[in-house]
Amino acid sequence: MENMDILRAAIKHRMFSQGDRVLAAVSGGPDSVAMLHALHTHSAEFGIRLYVAHLNHQIRGEESNLDEVFVHNLAHSFGLEAIIRRVDVPSLREELGMGVEEAARFVRYKFLRDTSTELGANKIAVGHNADDRVESVLLNVIRGAGISGLGSIRPIRGNIVRPLLDTPRKEIEQYIKENALPFRIDESNMDTSYARNRIRHELIPLLEQDYNPAIREALVKLAEIAGAQNDLITDLANAALNEIRDDSNINPVHFLDLHKALQYQVIRAEIERLKGNLLDVGYEHVERVIEALRSGEDFTITLPSGLIYAERRGDKFSIRKREKLPEIEPFDVPLPAPGSVKIELIGLNIQADIIDSPTPGKLPPDEALIDADSITGQLRIRSIHPGDRIVPLGMQGSKKLQDIFVDKKISKSERTRAAVVVDDEKVLWVVGVVSSERGKVTDKTRRAIHLRSERN
Amino acid sequence: MENMDILRAAIKHRMFSQGDRVLAAVSGGPDSVAMLHALHTHSAEFGIRLYVAHLNHQIRGEESNLDEVFVHNLAHSFGLEAIIRRVDVPSLREELGMGVEEAARFVRYKFLRDTSTELGANKIAVGHNADDRVESVLLNVIRGAGISGLGSIRPIRGNIVRPLLDTPRKEIEQYIKENALPFRIDESNMDTSYARNRIRHELIPLLEQDYNPAIREALVKLAEIAGAQNDLITDLANAALNEIRDDSNINPVHFLDLHKALQYQVIRAEIERLKGNLLDVGYEHVERVIEALRSGEDFTITLPSGLIYAERRGDKFSIRKREKLPEIEPFDVPLPAPGSVKIELIGLNIQADIIDSPTPGKLPPDEALIDADSITGQLRIRSIHPGDRIVPLGMQGSKKLQDIFVDKKISKSERTRAAVVVDDEKVLWVVGVVSSERGKVTDKTRRAIHLRSERN
Repeated sequence: MENMDILRAAIKHRMFSQGDRVLAAVSGGPDSVAMLHALHTHSAEFGIRLYVAHLNHQIRGEESNLDEVFVHNLAHSFGLEAIIRRVDVPSLREELGMGVEEAARFVRYKFLRDTSTELGANKIAVGHNADDRVESVLLNVIRGAGISGLGSIRPIRGNIVRPLLDTPRKEIEQYIKENALPFRIDESNMDTSYARNRIRHELIPLLEQDYNPAIREALVKLAEIAGAQNDLITDLANAALNEIRDDSNINPVHFLDLHKALQYQVIRAEIERLKGNLLDVGYEHVERVIEALRSGEDFTITLPSGLIYAERRGDKFSIRKREKLPEIEPFDVPLPAPGSVKIELIGLNIQADIIDSPTPGKLPPDEALIDADSITGQLRIRSIHPGDRIVPLGMQGSKKLQDIFVDKKISKSERTRAAVVVDDEKVLWVVGVVSSERGKVTDKTRRAIHLRSERN
Repeated sequence: MENMDILRAAIKHRMFSQGDRVLAAVSGGPDSVAMLHALHTHSAEFGIRLYVAHLNHQIRGEESNLDEVFVHNLAHSFGLEAIIRRVDVPSLREELGMGVEEAARFVRYKFLRDTSTELGANKIAVGHNADDRVESVLLNVIRGAGISGLGSIRPIRGNIVRPLLDTPRKEIEQYIKENALPFRIDESNMDTSYARNRIRHELIPLLEQDYNPAIREALVKLAEIAGAQNDLITDLANAALNEIRDDSNINPVHFLDLHKALQYQVIRAEIERLKGNLLDVGYEHVERVIEALRSGEDFTITLPSGLIYAERRGDKFSIRKREKLPEIEPFDVPLPAPGSVKIELIGLNIQADIIDSPTPGKLPPDEALIDADSITGQLRIRSIHPGDRIVPLGMQGSKKLQDIFVDKKISKSERTRAAVVVDDEKVLWVVGVVSSERGKVTDKTRRAIHLRSERN
């Protein structure tokens, strides 16, 4: 009998039971191929029936089609039924206001859920390995995804199982070699984004070398505890929500009686229910709603990505969804420096200060530094016009704002609340997004305008 | 009126109420001096009465005494009462089985609690700043301290408040300068250990530059959510414990009915109640107890640091404390390579493998790599003898094991379960602690023995 070690997570967490129908998600990459081979080899021992699912995202043109053919043939060679679907992710992504990677994941999991229902498959097996997990935890720590982000990749979550989750990437490569398995390489490396690659190849080795040789174990442990805590808090928050929500209204007094951690989760759960996901919803948004409730006053707070809002009217608090985005009137106002401007329409505050002999350097996206001598005429802040262009900092040619929004994954609804700082000739800053090379501060800059934006 | 900005955390979190008696912990360093000055300046506005507390740890000899005099004079110059105590931390630490830093913190917080009770002070103010917090979160992520570690430095915890917690270190330095305040520098930098210093000066700037310019905010957010979740889970676990514990026995069936996150916290709470702290108690220890309970069998599992154990007898599960450490019989057995040896007495398993042309490099402490040609005679594993010495990897002279245990903060109770791998001439590995320079693997090594240890 062949070594089952590669599936150790499946054994440890008792992922499979006799009679399970398991839908294996197979991209064609080494992880999913190794997983399929191992599950297929041991399907009799587990007592499971396997199906193969593959989604052609059509992101890589002909390569995507070759992936599809590859998985089809692989399944055939194992004598397994393959369910293959094509979705035009590139044309869907803009509508969804997501990046390619997010949109692909969104569509993929929907496809897997739908397909498992159709087949009567009670488990969905996906191929994340031990390194993926460690990298995700660290990525989420760095991005500030909160505890919910830390516990996101887990051995078992609902009907999704990850049989390779305790197996290091190296061991999977070894398994592929030993069993002479074919696989496809994703040249675009879509799933291994730039940040993730740096974390894999630079940050983790650095932490391992200089800080904690057992950093991987430390991060897995964090993920496990976070996962268990999240489950509990989610359950408790849902139970609390059932208690304190009447129709779609929540009693603010009962809400404020809840434990802080539950208040936080209740708001998140309500937003997720209406919005379908929690993209762009941060701790700070939830915190603002809770603060407003504490104040005792009525309020309306717009939440990402613009369609969802929180509202209190007397003893009724609710999270609601607008049918369509509110129309934003075009605006165009002078920006005094030093001074500040408030654009109530889009909940934006801009503060402008003068700095003598500024130091060039990176700034967070909600700030910009503009060489005062680069400004022609009057500094103004206005809504965006069709055809607006900017030369992004560090680049040479100009780019359409439209294209920048797509690249930066800024949803259509967010774009309606966008603003630009301009002079008489050019766009100097797309607020919160990118500043212009043409206003760049260098060692020679004598005076600069320091801009800070605040959204509410 | 002077700027209260440095105390923004006190205002945001409403730390003080009219009539509070506040004991300010003052080490004499810039943070605590700035805090004392700011609280003193605004004590009328807050309506608080201030006291100064200083513990002379006697760690830095004459310098410690000068700190004491400095704080005494500072309090006097503000017209405040100072409560000063001396504790000989260096001679206490070995008894406690802690490192200097841990022992000092332990003694300091006890002193602060006792003193506040004596004075009728209802708040204790300590001087952690925003950078301390960010560094602690990251340190805890890296060390694998779990979620409880992430939420450890908080604005308000019981009667302890941290009025500078939202103020960056730079701003405190600025405040010290502007107000021409005197302060003492701790040359030993006890509170800013090596790892913390590297995190401050290397890791955070690196993450800020290359990964997320808002990394500090991300880590603070993580700390806040973790803190709130921990509170909730601790409360719930204590409530559950009251339900399922009868006398000191817990019903295993009821225990296993609890949510996973609560099971984890219940075990931790029981250990903490008996042991007084959770030092050296990791996720893996708790996990082992839960696994054993799931098996349905009776068991006895010894927990760090040896006096505490978990036991199941039929339908009774409990965490208990031994009066004294069990006597360990001396042992001395051959260690075959390749092969493995199990020392039941101390719950240790050693696996030895032969590796040809090994690559030199760092290993986690539970593994060792020994150049096969460096071994004289028979490889054995035995209990430690008084006077045992080793040349630690990377060093030149030999060191007493006794001294190594003290340096590595290994408690007396853990030492009774220690083991060494030796040949006929020398100690090659203190299992789980340090290996010998004299068995070091280099580029020239032809064959090595790879040793792996497992405790249970």
